[in-house]
Amino acid sequence: MKRSVIDTVDLTVEELDGIIKTACDIIDNPKAYSEKCKGKKLATLFFEPSTRTRLSFEAAMLELGGSVIGFSEASSSSAAKGESVADTAKVISCYADIIAMRHPKEGAPYVAAKNASIPLINAGDGSHCHPTQTLADLLTIYREKGRLNDLSVGFCGDLKYGRTVHSLINALSRYTGIKVVLISPNELRLPKYVREGVLEKKGMEYIETTDLESSLNSLDVLYMTRIQRERFFDADEYERLKDSYVLTAEKMQLAKPDTIVLHPLPRVNEISVKVDEDKRACYFKQVLNGKYMRMALILKLLKDAEEGVAPTHSEEHAFVGKLKCLNPRCITSTEQELEHKFEKTDVEGVYKCIYCEAEYKI
Amino acid sequence: MKRSVIDTVDLTVEELDGIIKTACDIIDNPKAYSEKCKGKKLATLFFEPSTRTRLSFEAAMLELGGSVIGFSEASSSSAAKGESVADTAKVISCYADIIAMRHPKEGAPYVAAKNASIPLINAGDGSHCHPTQTLADLLTIYREKGRLNDLSVGFCGDLKYGRTVHSLINALSRYTGIKVVLISPNELRLPKYVREGVLEKKGMEYIETTDLESSLNSLDVLYMTRIQRERFFDADEYERLKDSYVLTAEKMQLAKPDTIVLHPLPRVNEISVKVDEDKRACYFKQVLNGKYMRMALILKLLKDAEEGVAPTHSEEHAFVGKLKCLNPRCITSTEQELEHKFEKTDVEGVYKCIYCEAEYKI
Amino acid sequence: MKRSVIDTVDLTVEELDGIIKTACDIIDNPKAYSEKCKGKKLATLFFEPSTRTRLSFEAAMLELGGSVIGFSEASSSSAAKGESVADTAKVISCYADIIAMRHPKEGAPYVAAKNASIPLINAGDGSHCHPTQTLADLLTIYREKGRLNDLSVGFCGDLKYGRTVHSLINALSRYTGIKVVLISPNELRLPKYVREGVLEKKGMEYIETTDLESSLNSLDVLYMTRIQRERFFDADEYERLKDSYVLTAEKMQLAKPDTIVLHPLPRVNEISVKVDEDKRACYFKQVLNGKYMRMALILKLLKDAEEGVAPTHSEEHAFVGKLKCLNPRCITSTEQELEHKFEKTDVEGVYKCIYCEAEYKI
Repeated sequence: MKRSVIDTVDLTVEELDGIIKTACDIIDNPKAYSEKCKGKKLATLFFEPSTRTRLSFEAAMLELGGSVIGFSEASSSSAAKGESVADTAKVISCYADIIAMRHPKEGAPYVAAKNASIPLINAGDGSHCHPTQTLADLLTIYREKGRLNDLSVGFCGDLKYGRTVHSLINALSRYTGIKVVLISPNELRLPKYVREGVLEKKGMEYIETTDLESSLNSLDVLYMTRIQRERFFDADEYERLKDSYVLTAEKMQLAKPDTIVLHPLPRVNEISVKVDEDKRACYFKQVLNGKYMRMALILKLLKDAEEGVAPTHSEEHAFVGKLKCLNPRCITSTEQELEHKFEKTDVEGVYKCIYCEAEYKI
Repeated sequence: MKRSVIDTVDLTVEELDGIIKTACDIIDNPKAYSEKCKGKKLATLFFEPSTRTRLSFEAAMLELGGSVIGFSEASSSSAAKGESVADTAKVISCYADIIAMRHPKEGAPYVAAKNASIPLINAGDGSHCHPTQTLADLLTIYREKGRLNDLSVGFCGDLKYGRTVHSLINALSRYTGIKVVLISPNELRLPKYVREGVLEKKGMEYIETTDLESSLNSLDVLYMTRIQRERFFDADEYERLKDSYVLTAEKMQLAKPDTIVLHPLPRVNEISVKVDEDKRACYFKQVLNGKYMRMALILKLLKDAEEGVAPTHSEEHAFVGKLKCLNPRCITSTEQELEHKFEKTDVEGVYKCIYCEAEYKI
Repeated sequence: MKRSVIDTVDLTVEELDGIIKTACDIIDNPKAYSEKCKGKKLATLFFEPSTRTRLSFEAAMLELGGSVIGFSEASSSSAAKGESVADTAKVISCYADIIAMRHPKEGAPYVAAKNASIPLINAGDGSHCHPTQTLADLLTIYREKGRLNDLSVGFCGDLKYGRTVHSLINALSRYTGIKVVLISPNELRLPKYVREGVLEKKGMEYIETTDLESSLNSLDVLYMTRIQRERFFDADEYERLKDSYVLTAEKMQLAKPDTIVLHPLPRVNEISVKVDEDKRACYFKQVLNGKYMRMALILKLLKDAEEGVAPTHSEEHAFVGKLKCLNPRCITSTEQELEHKFEKTDVEGVYKCIYCEAEYKI
């Protein structure tokens, strides 16, 4: 196992700052980086389609002078023949120098990283993590606002299932002076484990509201999200909620002159196309920034691998017992040979699955 | 928006001659071009599969020293998540230097070009346009016959839905001394808007016939087409017509010694395999020529972008009114946010959709 | 047609030795090969998915400094529009310098090679051949055991449908001192045409057994295979047999200290994950060796093409008669225009289809 990135917090704040610095240098001097990965190969293993993320990784590697192999959906992969994620990781380690992996099952990239002999970047695993999206968000805030602390950040839309929201809140919790405004319908409020486990635990100031308009004039950053059909069990509930919290040009008049609007994309109609012309709309800049952060991260992990930096993830404190992970989206639900392993959390008597991080009280 | 090519007529005759000249120079001196696009990326956005066209573009970019990212069908793309073509174009502009786009909806590449910040080449949009196929046709005629004027050109097969036929007729209408022979069953005759809007308007000599054999001895060029199952609403009609107008070795004996046979490929059985051995069969040469013309076009558009050449398409005279485009294959039929826009045509009271060019009398 | 490789035996033993030598040199001096294929393109034409094989070919070409175009399943290809394999081969010859082709129909790569103007490597055609897997097997045995003769080689699992088994037995039959141990349930015994046509014909020593455990202590090489669901007509029979002949850490204790374990992968559960830690487990080394052999083979065939080496396959002695190939997996079953052709075998009155090599007594 090599140093890999499954979650944003696998990187220390210092490392994050270093990656941001590298990204800014790439932006200023792209030619200095155009041969940095010559002869290196990135494997994009996308067990579910995500064109934007995949092409961002591929563009990143190509702009570093490297090349790309991979697949864009599971039907093209050996998984259809029953190969385990662990075996796929071992095989791909023979073909490439670094992996970017997307998988519908939570924890799958962790299992792959454990078995690969090359570094791996999680490109999204179910509702679990999507660290390079968070890197894109952070670079955009940094470049547009000049800082990552002392910011009022609003999150709007689906805060319950919004993986990118949880991840960005988590990342921002390591900076100071962050005030969070949570704007969502009651049904899609930020889950308790983020509210208590991150916001309250870290002593961050936050408010919850159902009203987008009245929040707008206080925000430095407005992070919009899509209400995804696939996150709903009930089609009617989706229909009722999907048009809530649409950002329009009219509403933008209520925002501050320097509020920036972010969105992880793709959007459907939660931001009106008219808003695109507003110079505060930064969601396409985010796309570009995502590419640069992926370049910086690829460089860092290849360097760490070369220098033999130890992996972040240790299973030293993990145990195997009678407990089984019950999360139907956990990789243990499909890979029968995987041992169910758990770790203690900070809360007495609460344990989490080492793969998907689902928590259990015993 | 950058200078893009949606239709062959977006290029002036002088520009076309320049592209042909470049293609011939590439053929003579491939090595002089092998690094021309070093560090550049082509994005192949194929919302429906078309292996031959996609691989031609990819081979073209690679032979120029560039690299390629993209997808080969819509299921792998963000479109499946409801992303608009406009947004996809903006996102891809962050990743690549030029786009080749195939889309089942007519006008989709136009919408993408409008929103991209990099040049775009239409790689086929429904029954609308497929300009690089026409470029392949033109280079093949030029290389085999030594000229693009004073030619008798027969078109055989499905002239009703045959996009490549309409496009080549349109392209040839800008040269002099072209005589057109239209060979098809009555059900698949050339549509009135091409007959009147191109052949008659430009005063080109043409005849219509249902008989392939009697036409053969008069032609310099015979352009065969496939009768595509997907163009038919009625399976029985397809079965009845599909074997009409099959070119065999016997029929080739009726053709002139220097008649060249073209076909846009793939063929099913409309040209007998035995004809392949005939040196007048040029349809595989067409494939090679298509690659060279794509190389020349990529070079031209990247140069135009660098030099800030203005895009061909202006919506200066377009208007938004009560009129809605009713073409079920128009991009406006699926992209709800798109404004229906129209332009005057040369005919009094007739307007055309700026996306799919469907015409309406008011 | 250029020199192509459809089956391992298309290569002489001397050529095989040369390829192994090149592969070993690549392993020792990878940098010396990193630009050998600069400007060359490999087309990976995978009419059915096989991620591992495809990525191995792509990694191989990239490590030689070349580039790759292609498709990973038939739905993305022109085949869906009814294009023949012969036409696809002619078209791809305009785009690439060498082809790696996977196809569900037996004989399809042969048909493609006949029609291509560039070399072709069979990357697996139905149950027929998969020569580069055999090259991977041979290099692994050679590197681990130091020789390709005087070996006791056990084959375990599905010996009836196991294409890789038949192919490796065939390849080993050209070396001396090979003893073969065939371990399988009765239902999945090695077919008569391999037993009689290879083992007995070449006078190789062999035994058949249903017992894995008692065979283990005699083997230099143990070749495990997967019991593939898709090879069975009867689901119950599959369920009954799939868990037979599972290799576990316990059973490994019965093997010699220097027995090496091979497997063509992907495995499902026929080798316990615990065995991976055993240093005698060489199946992931096989993956790496496969890449190196593909590199060596690509280099050889491109060199042969440049030097005009004659193709191995001649149809000089083939005839067209009343006989039709009845193999439902033969390419003649789907490509209607293909002439059914046959050749004499060594056995009086027995003829084989030149495409799929199915045999017929007349």
